[in-house]
Amino acid sequence: MNTFGRIFRLTSFGESHGKGIGGVIDGCPAGIAIDHDFIQQELARRKPGQSKITTQRQEPDQVEFFSGIFEGKSQGTPIGFAVWNKDQHSNDYNDLKSVFRPSHADYTYLQKYGTRDHRGGGRSSARETIARVVAGAVGKLILREVGVKIQAYVSQVGEVELDKPYQELDLSATENNIVRCPDQETADRMIARIEAAGRNHDTVGGVITGVITGVPAGWGEPVFNKLHASLGFAMLGINAVKGFEYGSGFAGTRLSGSEHNDIFVPDGSGVRTVTNHSGGIQGGISNGEDIYFRVAFKPIATLLKEQQTVDQDRNIVSINPKGRHDPCVLPRAVPIVEAMAALVLTDFYLMSKLYSR
Amino acid sequence: MNTFGRIFRLTSFGESHGKGIGGVIDGCPAGIAIDHDFIQQELARRKPGQSKITTQRQEPDQVEFFSGIFEGKSQGTPIGFAVWNKDQHSNDYNDLKSVFRPSHADYTYLQKYGTRDHRGGGRSSARETIARVVAGAVGKLILREVGVKIQAYVSQVGEVELDKPYQELDLSATENNIVRCPDQETADRMIARIEAAGRNHDTVGGVITGVITGVPAGWGEPVFNKLHASLGFAMLGINAVKGFEYGSGFAGTRLSGSEHNDIFVPDGSGVRTVTNHSGGIQGGISNGEDIYFRVAFKPIATLLKEQQTVDQDRNIVSINPKGRHDPCVLPRAVPIVEAMAALVLTDFYLMSKLYSR
Amino acid sequence: MNTFGRIFRLTSFGESHGKGIGGVIDGCPAGIAIDHDFIQQELARRKPGQSKITTQRQEPDQVEFFSGIFEGKSQGTPIGFAVWNKDQHSNDYNDLKSVFRPSHADYTYLQKYGTRDHRGGGRSSARETIARVVAGAVGKLILREVGVKIQAYVSQVGEVELDKPYQELDLSATENNIVRCPDQETADRMIARIEAAGRNHDTVGGVITGVITGVPAGWGEPVFNKLHASLGFAMLGINAVKGFEYGSGFAGTRLSGSEHNDIFVPDGSGVRTVTNHSGGIQGGISNGEDIYFRVAFKPIATLLKEQQTVDQDRNIVSINPKGRHDPCVLPRAVPIVEAMAALVLTDFYLMSKLYSR
Amino acid sequence: MNTFGRIFRLTSFGESHGKGIGGVIDGCPAGIAIDHDFIQQELARRKPGQSKITTQRQEPDQVEFFSGIFEGKSQGTPIGFAVWNKDQHSNDYNDLKSVFRPSHADYTYLQKYGTRDHRGGGRSSARETIARVVAGAVGKLILREVGVKIQAYVSQVGEVELDKPYQELDLSATENNIVRCPDQETADRMIARIEAAGRNHDTVGGVITGVITGVPAGWGEPVFNKLHASLGFAMLGINAVKGFEYGSGFAGTRLSGSEHNDIFVPDGSGVRTVTNHSGGIQGGISNGEDIYFRVAFKPIATLLKEQQTVDQDRNIVSINPKGRHDPCVLPRAVPIVEAMAALVLTDFYLMSKLYSR
Repeated sequence: MNTFGRIFRLTSFGESHGKGIGGVIDGCPAGIAIDHDFIQQELARRKPGQSKITTQRQEPDQVEFFSGIFEGKSQGTPIGFAVWNKDQHSNDYNDLKSVFRPSHADYTYLQKYGTRDHRGGGRSSARETIARVVAGAVGKLILREVGVKIQAYVSQVGEVELDKPYQELDLSATENNIVRCPDQETADRMIARIEAAGRNHDTVGGVITGVITGVPAGWGEPVFNKLHASLGFAMLGINAVKGFEYGSGFAGTRLSGSEHNDIFVPDGSGVRTVTNHSGGIQGGISNGEDIYFRVAFKPIATLLKEQQTVDQDRNIVSINPKGRHDPCVLPRAVPIVEAMAALVLTDFYLMSKLYSR
Repeated sequence: MNTFGRIFRLTSFGESHGKGIGGVIDGCPAGIAIDHDFIQQELARRKPGQSKITTQRQEPDQVEFFSGIFEGKSQGTPIGFAVWNKDQHSNDYNDLKSVFRPSHADYTYLQKYGTRDHRGGGRSSARETIARVVAGAVGKLILREVGVKIQAYVSQVGEVELDKPYQELDLSATENNIVRCPDQETADRMIARIEAAGRNHDTVGGVITGVITGVPAGWGEPVFNKLHASLGFAMLGINAVKGFEYGSGFAGTRLSGSEHNDIFVPDGSGVRTVTNHSGGIQGGISNGEDIYFRVAFKPIATLLKEQQTVDQDRNIVSINPKGRHDPCVLPRAVPIVEAMAALVLTDFYLMSKLYSR
Repeated sequence: MNTFGRIFRLTSFGESHGKGIGGVIDGCPAGIAIDHDFIQQELARRKPGQSKITTQRQEPDQVEFFSGIFEGKSQGTPIGFAVWNKDQHSNDYNDLKSVFRPSHADYTYLQKYGTRDHRGGGRSSARETIARVVAGAVGKLILREVGVKIQAYVSQVGEVELDKPYQELDLSATENNIVRCPDQETADRMIARIEAAGRNHDTVGGVITGVITGVPAGWGEPVFNKLHASLGFAMLGINAVKGFEYGSGFAGTRLSGSEHNDIFVPDGSGVRTVTNHSGGIQGGISNGEDIYFRVAFKPIATLLKEQQTVDQDRNIVSINPKGRHDPCVLPRAVPIVEAMAALVLTDFYLMSKLYSR
Repeated sequence: MNTFGRIFRLTSFGESHGKGIGGVIDGCPAGIAIDHDFIQQELARRKPGQSKITTQRQEPDQVEFFSGIFEGKSQGTPIGFAVWNKDQHSNDYNDLKSVFRPSHADYTYLQKYGTRDHRGGGRSSARETIARVVAGAVGKLILREVGVKIQAYVSQVGEVELDKPYQELDLSATENNIVRCPDQETADRMIARIEAAGRNHDTVGGVITGVITGVPAGWGEPVFNKLHASLGFAMLGINAVKGFEYGSGFAGTRLSGSEHNDIFVPDGSGVRTVTNHSGGIQGGISNGEDIYFRVAFKPIATLLKEQQTVDQDRNIVSINPKGRHDPCVLPRAVPIVEAMAALVLTDFYLMSKLYSR
């Protein structure tokens, strides 16, 4: 099941070392100006080789659209697209052909499918997220028309934490540095932390914070498909993600109800809340306040140093992967988090039309 | 969209102060012995009035099955059911008819639907989870046949935390106390904490830990519908949940890759991992190790003390709810967490058959 | 998979000789006045024992709603309902317990599920269509608000055919006779034909014609989910249906393109077509003209006379069913055809909102 | 919604005069040998320019696979593919830019989407069926492994009818002539009929018969998703289709129940029926007999002669399309009918695994 979404749907395809990564965007309304430069720019934020702290695989990552766009505008018909793979070093993986790399999907894929494409992780490669970034960019173009904005940034790398809440940050500064943390001083420490990990042939995890503004009250669903449940599902579907919290999150479990409740006050022709522990969502439905959430990423499993494991015949073996890998997934994951949020919000935006009379 | 699941599906209906709560379980294989006592026992674990630390609403919560069962066995056809509401005090809510209770769904429902059933939260009431517990119990009966077991327990109430990992606990002791914490000493402190909140007419949140054993390697999906993404979606769809993490979770973001990786070793005719930071899931697919996760619950929003808010005309008003409410949702949420996990696992169990040749 | 529809969805449950037949209507917009009398009236059109040419099973077929309606209006939340079975003669089926009745689902159910409820056909009984009539009636209430009207009538019984096209008939006369044919002279011949079949302990098939007026241009989908494909799917899902055609249908295969094409002409602020071989649908999308279609029903398989068959052990046996059965399904199938059309149209109506900007 | 199927799913994209037609096949089990030559051969049966009675548009229609196949076998991961458009004469359509061609989708598309790609019908072109033929061919490869065979042939062109039932025909002769009718004498008359239509710059419709052998008892679903309802939905989703019937079909409505019932008899370790009016499906589930059905195609709407219509401003205009068009869609539609049947049967084959214990 490689389809995400109910009304605005992405069906993705492609492996790390196959011809390319692509997908079909279905349910896009007609008449949306498809800003090719913007989409390409989003891909550039995700692309390998973009800085000294990312993998040095060189991929132009140019998207090619096949359908659904005519004279620059969406037609309401499915948008097929692909990004072709160029800089594949499939031979880097020959030694790993019959080995289960620790904390990778090698073993579980084989158990599920009875076969696997060992080259670069095949379908389980993070390269698959290209399709999400393209579709998410189209989602952002739709959401932009109704004033919804999605921004994410790196708020923790290993033990280096950005302590300020998002309200105290200038999120427009996120792209000013290679780690994508809007606080430059913290960014510098994060970069140093990633470089240290790289020098040790080790990796480091962290947290990305997402902020969504401009969502009107009334988007979401009350029971299973709560807005935050769909956001959590989207984020947990990104490789290496181990946790999701929104609003007050895990920390909110330590507050009393009287501390946690967000008091309503009149505001112009509507209402607002004084605090926002709810994270902009109450009963699964947006209340008009900012939506914010945090996503936990484990350290990447591919280490460029010797590790013990077993092969398909259950022999203990030692591996020492070469390949080209990120010491930290966080900087490149920022546009992916935004893209998944965009897919969810676009879906709920379109669904909100079903209730208008 | 009140349906959960893809193959094993629950469609739920019902409001807190309507005729009852029920649903349709679709996709249940034929020939499953439907153990009515077991299902009733699961409902009893969720039921109000079960102890001094839960709401005193008195509901027998007897499930009535309408279809899909013949001579004690499932028929492969849809299982309709309901639990009728008995002890409704709808008048308790008359004063709140036009008021938006803080951190409730009153305001967002009205924004979404343009109307709402003000009696006891209507559809947004936690009473809706009855349907989940019934369907989850049926799921447990299916999973039992293939050796999968799901257990949850309260691991934190406010600042009272159970520090031991689940491996050091005797989970069979969970039901020995009213707070559903398998460590009696911690349980006592949790109960005291809840009673203190109740005395203050306040509420308290916490964390539930879930443990799933017996899942063979190969269940799950690699991209969007990762096994843990589906678990997270299920948990975040429970009222009052603010966060979900599995395996190493948020804490794992502080480990290095070499610390976090789970090393494979041969084990009989298969393989196992030495550690289990992966939480039993790699690349979205089960690896045969225990699956474990944590779910954050905020303190319940209904306080039995005076609070300021606004009404539908944006007048500032003061409310002081009467009704009968839980000071802490955690003890009664344990069977709900288990039920949602059971729905997810049953779905993936059935889907795993699609891949066998 | 007992759910029909994508946005406006019916999930049905229930067997012929179980507690009752019911379902959950999900995706109904909030604020629809739920006219209980109208729904009951639709059920009365489907109900057994309504005339001398239908089965004499006596069922009040009163619908009970469980949820989703407050102060007479839909709430946007799921509408649970059931019609309880009353006049069951389950013992009539004891003799048939291990027998495969010819052209019934007995054999195929056993092959699929490995078990079956032999009482009255269980889930394969036409009694299951009660749920469809209830949900279809709700659909009609929604469609009424936007001017869409659905009417069906019996246009053929055995070799007795109503030769006039629907445009030459007064469809408001359909309910004037027990066979539901708007042409009284033909109706009389149809009734005689059904009575003759009944006297022979035999059964007779026929055709129902459906007409949908008031659908604006633009409802439907262009590729797989064409409006007529969805209508066909709905009709072919009714028990005993063997064929579906719309517009010119099978007869249109004998026309040349120049005869078949519907010429556009200006009409007020819009356009219309001079002829309507297209049946109101072009490229899968409504064009504003009347939608009309024909549904073929085979003669009912249950004969009240001796027939040879085999039992579960493959012994040749002779059966002579008693029970109470219709000699012709057509008169009671008229409201079912309308209901299924209403489910489809309501779904497409709601989906049409997704495309408005 | 450009996705077909529930477990085995095709998501298609592409317009007649865009870059190409393609899709994503999801849910294909791992380990299937993907016979590229066979798939190409299926495309050749659908391809334009294949004979004197089809359009002379010249397209190589070579499929390119992007993913999901490794070392010649399916991986269980999504199979992306495209067939690139080559011989586009988009300028042929400039004159028709603002005109609504009679009985085309021009008007309804504009009503639905507010915009349309006028070049060659855009998405409503029958060229879209390329994606179906590719996915259907993959389905056939899966079904072949379990002994299911799907064959279709032209059984009527205009008033030229093949009177023999399929049992009296040698279906392996279908490909021996360009009209795809297994009876050569009838085929000759059909070809003459199509050529006559072409000479008149007119078009002609007809009927395709489909036959599916080797389906075991037990595939299908009992209520909405009956096996024949899904087949009907699939066929009615093909351009130009106006009707579907299976087994005894519309003709069966004239039989009495005692004539129509298929009597069971013992057969080896199983049972069979003496006749097969049921068309291999009872209660929506296969009974092990041959499945057969008929699909009605209207005459193609594009005539190479002058016709009156209106333009977008509701002016009456006269059109005289040039372009390159088929006088009869039937010969090229045979592989499309087979492909759609293959999609349906593969889906039900995979679903049948869910019920095995």
